[in-house]
Amino acid sequence: NHRVDSKSLWLYRWYYSRICQWILGLTITVILGLAFIETPSSLTITSDIRYRSTAWEPPCGLTESIELLCFLIFIADVSVKSYLIGWEEFQKTKWLMAYILALVVSLTDWTVSMSFSCRETVRIRRILRPFFLLQNSSMMKKTLKSINSTLPEMASVVLLLAVHLSLFTMFGMLLFARTKDGQQDKEWLQYFRNLPDALTSLLVLLTTANNPDVMIPAYSKNRAYAIFFVLFTVLGNLFLMNLLTAIIYNQFRGYLLKSVQSSLFRRRLGIRAAFEVLCSLKETPARTHELCVNAETLLRVLKKVDMDFGCKHVILRTLKTCPHGLLSAVQFQKLFEELDKDSVKQHPAKPEYQSPFLQKMQFAFGHPYFSYIGNVVALANIISICVVLVMDADKQPSERDDFFLGAINFFFILYYLLEMLLKIMAMGLRRYLSYPSNRFDGLLTGILLVLEISTFAVYGFPHPGWRPEMMGLLSLWDMVRLVNMLIVFRFLRIIPNMKFMALVVSTLLDLVKNLRAFAGILLVVYYAFALIGIVLFKGAIVPMGNISVVNITSGNNTLQCGTYEQLEYWPNNFDDFAAALVTLWDVMVVNNWQVFLDAFSRYSNPWSKLYFVAWWLISSVIWVNLFVALLLENFIHKWDRRCQQQSLSEIEYQVT
Amino acid sequence: NHRVDSKSLWLYRWYYSRICQWILGLTITVILGLAFIETPSSLTITSDIRYRSTAWEPPCGLTESIELLCFLIFIADVSVKSYLIGWEEFQKTKWLMAYILALVVSLTDWTVSMSFSCRETVRIRRILRPFFLLQNSSMMKKTLKSINSTLPEMASVVLLLAVHLSLFTMFGMLLFARTKDGQQDKEWLQYFRNLPDALTSLLVLLTTANNPDVMIPAYSKNRAYAIFFVLFTVLGNLFLMNLLTAIIYNQFRGYLLKSVQSSLFRRRLGIRAAFEVLCSLKETPARTHELCVNAETLLRVLKKVDMDFGCKHVILRTLKTCPHGLLSAVQFQKLFEELDKDSVKQHPAKPEYQSPFLQKMQFAFGHPYFSYIGNVVALANIISICVVLVMDADKQPSERDDFFLGAINFFFILYYLLEMLLKIMAMGLRRYLSYPSNRFDGLLTGILLVLEISTFAVYGFPHPGWRPEMMGLLSLWDMVRLVNMLIVFRFLRIIPNMKFMALVVSTLLDLVKNLRAFAGILLVVYYAFALIGIVLFKGAIVPMGNISVVNITSGNNTLQCGTYEQLEYWPNNFDDFAAALVTLWDVMVVNNWQVFLDAFSRYSNPWSKLYFVAWWLISSVIWVNLFVALLLENFIHKWDRRCQQQSLSEIEYQVT
Repeated sequence: NHRVDSKSLWLYRWYYSRICQWILGLTITVILGLAFIETPSSLTITSDIRYRSTAWEPPCGLTESIELLCFLIFIADVSVKSYLIGWEEFQKTKWLMAYILALVVSLTDWTVSMSFSCRETVRIRRILRPFFLLQNSSMMKKTLKSINSTLPEMASVVLLLAVHLSLFTMFGMLLFARTKDGQQDKEWLQYFRNLPDALTSLLVLLTTANNPDVMIPAYSKNRAYAIFFVLFTVLGNLFLMNLLTAIIYNQFRGYLLKSVQSSLFRRRLGIRAAFEVLCSLKETPARTHELCVNAETLLRVLKKVDMDFGCKHVILRTLKTCPHGLLSAVQFQKLFEELDKDSVKQHPAKPEYQSPFLQKMQFAFGHPYFSYIGNVVALANIISICVVLVMDADKQPSERDDFFLGAINFFFILYYLLEMLLKIMAMGLRRYLSYPSNRFDGLLTGILLVLEISTFAVYGFPHPGWRPEMMGLLSLWDMVRLVNMLIVFRFLRIIPNMKFMALVVSTLLDLVKNLRAFAGILLVVYYAFALIGIVLFKGAIVPMGNISVVNITSGNNTLQCGTYEQLEYWPNNFDDFAAALVTLWDVMVVNNWQVFLDAFSRYSNPWSKLYFVAWWLISSVIWVNLFVALLLENFIHKWDRRCQQQSLSEIEYQVT
Repeated sequence: NHRVDSKSLWLYRWYYSRICQWILGLTITVILGLAFIETPSSLTITSDIRYRSTAWEPPCGLTESIELLCFLIFIADVSVKSYLIGWEEFQKTKWLMAYILALVVSLTDWTVSMSFSCRETVRIRRILRPFFLLQNSSMMKKTLKSINSTLPEMASVVLLLAVHLSLFTMFGMLLFARTKDGQQDKEWLQYFRNLPDALTSLLVLLTTANNPDVMIPAYSKNRAYAIFFVLFTVLGNLFLMNLLTAIIYNQFRGYLLKSVQSSLFRRRLGIRAAFEVLCSLKETPARTHELCVNAETLLRVLKKVDMDFGCKHVILRTLKTCPHGLLSAVQFQKLFEELDKDSVKQHPAKPEYQSPFLQKMQFAFGHPYFSYIGNVVALANIISICVVLVMDADKQPSERDDFFLGAINFFFILYYLLEMLLKIMAMGLRRYLSYPSNRFDGLLTGILLVLEISTFAVYGFPHPGWRPEMMGLLSLWDMVRLVNMLIVFRFLRIIPNMKFMALVVSTLLDLVKNLRAFAGILLVVYYAFALIGIVLFKGAIVPMGNISVVNITSGNNTLQCGTYEQLEYWPNNFDDFAAALVTLWDVMVVNNWQVFLDAFSRYSNPWSKLYFVAWWLISSVIWVNLFVALLLENFIHKWDRRCQQQSLSEIEYQVT
């Protein structure tokens, strides 16, 4: 639904051209990336507050001018978009309105920030930034809508969870109430001291993050107390939590099938519309028989159209064999069905040699067995690296003798080079490069060769007692070993030969493709939460330098086990953006998140727990379940299609 | 497929009668339950090796004679079963052969054990016991078969996991190799010291049980190391682990639908067969027209058949209205379709009162609003208990004033009693009891009343400063409060009013029904693993009494944080059956299982890790995923049925 006058159409084409969309994507990336270098900048080697050096702070105006540039591009974007859809549509599009609103707020915030010369505390526009990513992707908007429609059902399960939690909290507080004997009260003292403590203990138990610990004091008093905790975990974690997965999966069931169908439907509709347009162009020579399109007109149009080369070729060929230069609607549709088919890629032919010796060579090295030998050699390489690694694991670096490994590496790299050259000889360069696995092998061999030559240039040839120096994080020597390990990925080539493995891996690859919208939403959530976390907790964690010094001198340097300080979680803080991301990741993985709950409620505010619980709900409960649902959907979609196309795919496997 | 001569049929009926199957079930329960009282008996209050008293050991011959009795019943069972199916079928039935084998082995083991007068170390027959449970349930056998057919696919994913793990272990060992600077080597020292250590660290990270810890030493050196661990977790835990869920779910998809269909099909087949039999009984008066059954014959047969009363009633009524006393096959089938329908239960009618006052009372207290008021009062009760609980949480038991709570309790129980009586008056006793929710309410009120009266009898009426004594684990007073809290369950009544909640809860209830086979399999696995664990690790963990005394005297009583000793996991051991079950549960929940891995490899043998990893794979990876698959299947089956029967269920809701 957009304007269709020729000028608008030109603008439309220009706006949706590759370059324009690429610029827009780059702008979004840049404005999101700014968070890493802005004032609490992440440009330090470590985020550990004990060792951290002072970070480089960008001068006021640097990031702000980049930001302004981005905003200007966004303004251009929004005005073109609004112009194209026209005023009436614009009023209906809430996303566009929100886009404009976000821009206005951002610009206002920017001017305020400039007038304070970058010394203001809260920057609202930073939290609004992920919105620009969100509004630019129609997939993400659609996914968000789907999630939105599941919310009421999820809310009811979360309500059940809350009821479950509060009930058990009350039971727990009754069971583990304070008794007269102070010695027997460990459970009460540690986990059920008051309502917030008891709630937190059981909430964390719901995620199983403090599983045996919370039960131990009571359980070592009496076996029967274990029943309380086991029952709570079974009901809460096993039943209710997995019910959330079921609900979300139920929502997304058939999601892929529907989207495939609707995109097919839209394509059919487009083709039909094109037919109508082409019909109306023709000066209706014979109104008596049905509408039809002149093949030559179509030919001229097609030549201007930008589409997949293979399909175009096939369509043009079919068109030329068309009998009388006129196409009916049915024929027209049939012509474009080619677009729906996955084109089977043709590999270039092998070179044909004249000499019988070369032909024999070609047969020998073009044979699959030659690849198998390559795999075996790579396996031997891996095993030899492993053996050396295990033998050297406990040695001091100065005691290691690297001659053996150096010699082995040299031999293997020589073999890989030889293999590559022989294969190129047998298959010809073009055919060799047309297989992705060969490209990967060739690339690896090239890198290995360059690294090996430079090693020799620096350290000389390997000899007994040869010991290249370590330099930096990874010496050149380590690099060679790492790249050698990449050779392992050659084994991934054998996966398509195993039927089920092929399905699994292709599901995973498809998943990554379909995951973009979900990953985008995760990015948006991470970004927003990280920035809110920085606003709330920046500098909250202070290294206990003085205190620990005092303690050490008084000989009492024992920290309570399981606390933030004892576990040395110092690098997990909210002092800059990168550190905040890692901290959020740690909470998302859920294990030991009670440590963060405890530490931040001690260092900043007991209400900080709410922030972490909200993050847990959104990331670990909702997003991870979404991910599982998507994975299930992908796998089952794939599985069903495979069962249908069993015979077809059989052939395909034999072809490749 | 069994013998059909009349004696065998009689035996068949007798064998599958309720009483026989009940005896068999009881025998299985008894023989499984023996594990709790057998030699490492679980009859101690705590399993904590520091405080544990010596357990009562059953005299030699007590459990053994019970066991022999059970074996005799099993022998009778197996001989009846084998006789019934006949020799030819018997040869095909592997389960029966295995049953006999298990019995033979058990009996041999039993005689060996008696000849050693119960002092032998290993009892194979104990590990064989769960087999008796397994072979007695056809559902469990079917489920096991389904699981078995998923194994190759699961194996390929586990293979992928293993490749993933070993690859990352090698990368990790290269990245965190020992360097010259001893201070910088924390990561190497703690987690990547040698191949087994590195493998264990990453295997545990795969379950996220040591998530931030394993990353901290490297991460506080350099931010970039976090990428390694995040990548590992994303690939391993998020992708590959969830892929297992997808594979198992894919296998069990349509499992319920298929079983419902096949049971329907078998019933149809049976009805058709009954028709044929009844036809052949008749002396074929007219061979010209189609086969049919005399209605009176059927009537006589039906009267002897044992079936649901409601259905029988309906069928008999339909049969009597049958026009000419002859039924064709189609009519015959139609007649029994009644069996497929869920009968809508009719509640008995309300009593009809003559007096207009009583009629008004009936209207008032039979109205749904009266139930709502009851719910509100129960909510008030809960809140008041909560408030008192929160206020008293920090107080010493001697400081508490229980007068307020006592008075409140008295008032509420009085209200509940009144409510119950009024409802019975309004609805009549029979109608009142026909609602399950009312029965539940009535039961609760009765228990509350008994408890309250006995409280008054013991402590007298509440007055300011009233403070009932604590007695034992839960004093009578605590009991009253606990039962009061059961009133919360009245709120579960409102769930069917909320549309989606009703679905969720009915799914959960259905799940419990369908779960029996899965729970049985879990029981089998738990039982076998617990007994193997007892054989392997009994008495392995010794309290470090002497060592700690030495340490305390030398002033160095700090234990390393995060170890079994510091976390006081002493009650989690394999010294008796009940303790072993709880230990296995803790490992199944996965959190902190590295502590068990570490402790048992220190106390007994490094190879003990294999036992725990095997248990983790079977319980946490396979069984939990099976559970999730079953839950998904149940939910989606339910959801689809609900969408079909939308209108029908709408009516049902209005009826109830």
